[in-house]
Amino acid sequence: MQKIKDIAMSVFEIDEQALCFCFGGHEICLNCKECRKDRQSQVVDVDDDIMLNEYLDHTLLKPEAQYADIVKLCDEGQRYGFKSICINPSFVSSAKQINSEVKICTVIGFPLGAHTSEVKLFEAETAINEGASELDMVINIGALKDQEYSRIIDEIWSIKQLCKEKDLLLKVIIETALLQKEEIIIACLLAKKAGADFVKTSTGFANGGATVSDVSLMRQVVGTKMGVKASGGIRTREDAVNMLRSGANRIGTSNAVSMMNEK
Amino acid sequence: MQKIKDIAMSVFEIDEQALCFCFGGHEICLNCKECRKDRQSQVVDVDDDIMLNEYLDHTLLKPEAQYADIVKLCDEGQRYGFKSICINPSFVSSAKQINSEVKICTVIGFPLGAHTSEVKLFEAETAINEGASELDMVINIGALKDQEYSRIIDEIWSIKQLCKEKDLLLKVIIETALLQKEEIIIACLLAKKAGADFVKTSTGFANGGATVSDVSLMRQVVGTKMGVKASGGIRTREDAVNMLRSGANRIGTSNAVSMMNEK
Repeated sequence: MQKIKDIAMSVFEIDEQALCFCFGGHEICLNCKECRKDRQSQVVDVDDDIMLNEYLDHTLLKPEAQYADIVKLCDEGQRYGFKSICINPSFVSSAKQINSEVKICTVIGFPLGAHTSEVKLFEAETAINEGASELDMVINIGALKDQEYSRIIDEIWSIKQLCKEKDLLLKVIIETALLQKEEIIIACLLAKKAGADFVKTSTGFANGGATVSDVSLMRQVVGTKMGVKASGGIRTREDAVNMLRSGANRIGTSNAVSMMNEK
Repeated sequence: MQKIKDIAMSVFEIDEQALCFCFGGHEICLNCKECRKDRQSQVVDVDDDIMLNEYLDHTLLKPEAQYADIVKLCDEGQRYGFKSICINPSFVSSAKQINSEVKICTVIGFPLGAHTSEVKLFEAETAINEGASELDMVINIGALKDQEYSRIIDEIWSIKQLCKEKDLLLKVIIETALLQKEEIIIACLLAKKAGADFVKTSTGFANGGATVSDVSLMRQVVGTKMGVKASGGIRTREDAVNMLRSGANRIGTSNAVSMMNEK
């Protein structure tokens, strides 16, 4: 726990006396661009009767996905009551026209995160105009490793401004498989400071996905009042429940329907 | 050979009497937006003394690449006389400032191709303004499979217009590993018709890269007067030479330096 606080102190110019009221493992207030102290806890109370569907983003991000796949996804999204369908940006307007009641989540700067900030912002604006309700953006991973922290905060914050106007959720994908533990902590602190609604583990396109230990660390860093989405390699109901127990309150998976039909 | 012609006839409204003068396997003129009949052949005459460096795009597209890696890439690019360095868009302005003499190639809509056309166009514009000399764009693979051919042509053509203004090369990545043979033929015909300078096999992020048979087919489809870039899984000098022998006239590889040091 001390370690997270030390990292926070080294990354930001912050007042050691100012305490955090959103219960992040950093203990000290990050002076976030969006204060969360008056919000409700997002930690999930997992019991045997949990309505798993309400935590699942029904996901299809394969580049070869076709229109008929999106129609099916929308139909399943509504039928099972999933939290959202998560699709590539070129399908957002089609999904909107299909007029299912399920929310549309799309991805920004996906999956490498190595687009310019202007392009990510423009992509976010386009997606919002076309009907997206939630945006999952990828940070610039090289910039994180190069310690260009203000660049990462500015990128997240500029997209968050667009989201606020239309009351959209912004999730920030940090791609844990490519990061050291300390980099995971820093990435979560940056996303929190910049006002993101969620941190998210993975794109599903790297060499690894969500792990119990990374999700648990991410929850510890961001505190109880911010979202944590686990994604990448989550295939069974047991996988999903383990992620919720580790601190996730949203799951991204391309196996949502098979999970629901397991029992 | 007949098969390519038949496919061309089925995809485009074209005059069976109008012959092709750029020697594509379609035999009939596609009435391309950019006619290539007066251009030189791009087919490489491969002998033992071939200057391989002149055909290599020295490539680094890993999302975790850092600034120091780009400095090294630029240095190697100039030292070995590679055709270009191929990097993610967020590094184009840095590479330009490093001021190496090597050309900067960047990627558009990479690697999934599932961004909206507006976002790809904006990304191309940004990359050109920041100093890119060559653009490798990914087609919308789902749209190809959905037979939305005019959408694909329009997307390529709109980016080609930006390239023409600044005399840039446009390469079109079709991601062969996700396509059937007939879809490879159609993708090449669309790229050619839309005025692209090259067709390119792969992003390196799918489950397969360039193969001798795909490269050979692509060369057969586009004829001798358009470029063919082989990329994805090309690791040795022998791999590269095989690709050139199969019809490629450009190679994308992250092993360019080790290839040059093989003999």
